[in-house]
Amino acid sequence: MIKAKPFDFPYDGNLDPAATALIVIDMQHDFLSVDGYFAKQGYDPSPLRAILPTVSKLISACRAAGIRVIHTRQGYRADLADMTPYERWRRKRSGMDGTDVLVRGSPGFEIVPEIDVRSEDIIVDKTCNGAFTYTDLEHILHAQDVTHLLFAGCTTDVCVHTTLREACDRNFQCLTIADACASGDQYAHEAALHMVTVENGIFGTLSDSSAVLKALSEL
Amino acid sequence: MIKAKPFDFPYDGNLDPAATALIVIDMQHDFLSVDGYFAKQGYDPSPLRAILPTVSKLISACRAAGIRVIHTRQGYRADLADMTPYERWRRKRSGMDGTDVLVRGSPGFEIVPEIDVRSEDIIVDKTCNGAFTYTDLEHILHAQDVTHLLFAGCTTDVCVHTTLREACDRNFQCLTIADACASGDQYAHEAALHMVTVENGIFGTLSDSSAVLKALSEL
Amino acid sequence: MIKAKPFDFPYDGNLDPAATALIVIDMQHDFLSVDGYFAKQGYDPSPLRAILPTVSKLISACRAAGIRVIHTRQGYRADLADMTPYERWRRKRSGMDGTDVLVRGSPGFEIVPEIDVRSEDIIVDKTCNGAFTYTDLEHILHAQDVTHLLFAGCTTDVCVHTTLREACDRNFQCLTIADACASGDQYAHEAALHMVTVENGIFGTLSDSSAVLKALSEL
Amino acid sequence: MIKAKPFDFPYDGNLDPAATALIVIDMQHDFLSVDGYFAKQGYDPSPLRAILPTVSKLISACRAAGIRVIHTRQGYRADLADMTPYERWRRKRSGMDGTDVLVRGSPGFEIVPEIDVRSEDIIVDKTCNGAFTYTDLEHILHAQDVTHLLFAGCTTDVCVHTTLREACDRNFQCLTIADACASGDQYAHEAALHMVTVENGIFGTLSDSSAVLKALSEL
Repeated sequence: MIKAKPFDFPYDGNLDPAATALIVIDMQHDFLSVDGYFAKQGYDPSPLRAILPTVSKLISACRAAGIRVIHTRQGYRADLADMTPYERWRRKRSGMDGTDVLVRGSPGFEIVPEIDVRSEDIIVDKTCNGAFTYTDLEHILHAQDVTHLLFAGCTTDVCVHTTLREACDRNFQCLTIADACASGDQYAHEAALHMVTVENGIFGTLSDSSAVLKALSEL
Repeated sequence: MIKAKPFDFPYDGNLDPAATALIVIDMQHDFLSVDGYFAKQGYDPSPLRAILPTVSKLISACRAAGIRVIHTRQGYRADLADMTPYERWRRKRSGMDGTDVLVRGSPGFEIVPEIDVRSEDIIVDKTCNGAFTYTDLEHILHAQDVTHLLFAGCTTDVCVHTTLREACDRNFQCLTIADACASGDQYAHEAALHMVTVENGIFGTLSDSSAVLKALSEL
Repeated sequence: MIKAKPFDFPYDGNLDPAATALIVIDMQHDFLSVDGYFAKQGYDPSPLRAILPTVSKLISACRAAGIRVIHTRQGYRADLADMTPYERWRRKRSGMDGTDVLVRGSPGFEIVPEIDVRSEDIIVDKTCNGAFTYTDLEHILHAQDVTHLLFAGCTTDVCVHTTLREACDRNFQCLTIADACASGDQYAHEAALHMVTVENGIFGTLSDSSAVLKALSEL
Repeated sequence: MIKAKPFDFPYDGNLDPAATALIVIDMQHDFLSVDGYFAKQGYDPSPLRAILPTVSKLISACRAAGIRVIHTRQGYRADLADMTPYERWRRKRSGMDGTDVLVRGSPGFEIVPEIDVRSEDIIVDKTCNGAFTYTDLEHILHAQDVTHLLFAGCTTDVCVHTTLREACDRNFQCLTIADACASGDQYAHEAALHMVTVENGIFGTLSDSSAVLKALSEL
């Protein structure tokens, strides 16, 4: 059982590693690097880099506890078949015309080397902010009998929160790990964490890495 | 064209009423009434009631302009077949055990009378926060050739934002009308509006009712 | 365990009533009546009526065994918001212009009285042939922890098979009950049953009512 | 306009190459080769090889006409995260235990060299029989403003038909090209083609390559 707000996780006290996955959202060069997509949008990626040690500790602890690690990567298909005229216009408007940011196969698309991606991990590539939309994430989770999700990664307010909302609507039990999530917009980051707990846990539960690590060590 | 941030809506200047719908989220007794679900969760529904005149004005103006009006209603199926043990536990925890709040067919499920629901409007009932999940909303929008969505209703941070995120991920062009949305949590409300515009419009565009009404009057 | 082809159901021998549902597809006036949609399309509904006693026996036996009964109903929304111009054209072409066949709320939409629909049953209305598309069926099945599905109803080649295919792709364990399914096109009916078993059970398993009733009686 | 049954395609006479895609289903070694998945299941892949010239002619003609070509490939993820215990059991039962048939990255997963796959084509990998389920196919089609689909490939009764059914339920206008589809089971193949036309075109329209090539040449 992990100490959390507005109630401990999972609600029934049954923390089963085999039924749990850690979802690490979009820890890619395009978000964490000083010349990636996120920096080009005008954001300082420092807060995203700052969570690397925490995310790494969680990944190790989850692996040791038998919890599956799932990484998501944000990016358009290499053939750009999923990029609309509107998105092309937005890229142009943000000065990314002709670049390969957020495109699969480009260097920026790769997960940063500080994150230890292992062959036994699962990687899900997505075009949408929500990792459940037009991907096989839900298929995988059901195939693996995973019903409980721990959320880490970036950015808290965009891809973490959209995926979290999708997971809650599909009845997965969710815990967001506050200090393992980050955004370039501190106000949006903090508000996104707060939103998890509105209406007495409408988007599940909120905790931090120390509580998660403690619970995992006691399994 | 509607004046909006971070860019005007729609981005290509082509505001076509036949391709546009106003989505009015969850303006139900359960959210707006002093004895509904939302009040039972400890929230003051006053801010939700305060947007009623604005939402009503928008509905009238949209109808006059030939823009379809879609209302969503939040609630479990009357047979409760979509309610999980977890959700039963959460209801009990919030003192809603044995009540019929947020259940289809109950008085609280109905849209408040201040909202003028017409027979030519479309009503979509949902269990999830996101109106696209396990409903026919997307089916209807495609059948109606609707590609552009204006968002109003409550609550900004939960059901409006989840539905908005789903719509963006499905490539609908979206505009959130700030003063036509409300939440019982003012911090979450304001942050949710702010989030629309992060990453130069990751969740589309943000405007207010006066800009929308002005644009509609000029059509 | 139910005797079936190409292997018994479920494959692991664990027939758990609480995890199983009987899906009864579209046993509505519009398909079974002499003046319904199906008859208007030129089909003889007699084979559909002929399975009524078998379907009824299965429903009773499933109820007695603690297996949930789910009925689907085919029909456009009463507001016709989900009907495309193409579908309007097809209706006109088939002489159904201006009629209310296959529309929710019309008499033809109702399940025939020979089918004993109880308040504890679950009813899912659909516009598509597949009951998983733009409905809450999957949401309900997961909420009820149902993983195994028994298929009955009509028509074998269209709505039964489309829903069966969707269920298999979503990793539900499926059994089609041959003599509890029917179509107005005997060739298509028989071929649809045959297709269940191709590639050594690509769409699950095929059995008949006597084998199902026998297995349920032994539970 | 393409001559077809039960009515010509598209129904409104507006054959727009930019809004049309040719979907070529699963023309992979695993289905067409004498030592692939399909042969291991006991089927003779000759009928699948026999359509290669026809499919190739269609691909060329579609390209020349400005119609997008989309190839699907059937196969589990390389990490097997989407393979259930049931599917492992079925593989074992069919003597495919420990093999890499139907796994992404294996030689059998590749499209056969007779099919001219170009860099401007779109490739969609899928685990399910239906190419719309847990993939980005629908996302791509909407992003490309594709509303009309021509179906070719294998097998007619399984992956072609499941994808066709999904496409119809999502309101795509569909044409199945009879002599460009094949199955190892001739009875199932012919019945699947017949099913397209039941209920006056419940799964769209049915034609053959000569009619398609003629219409494309007249564009």
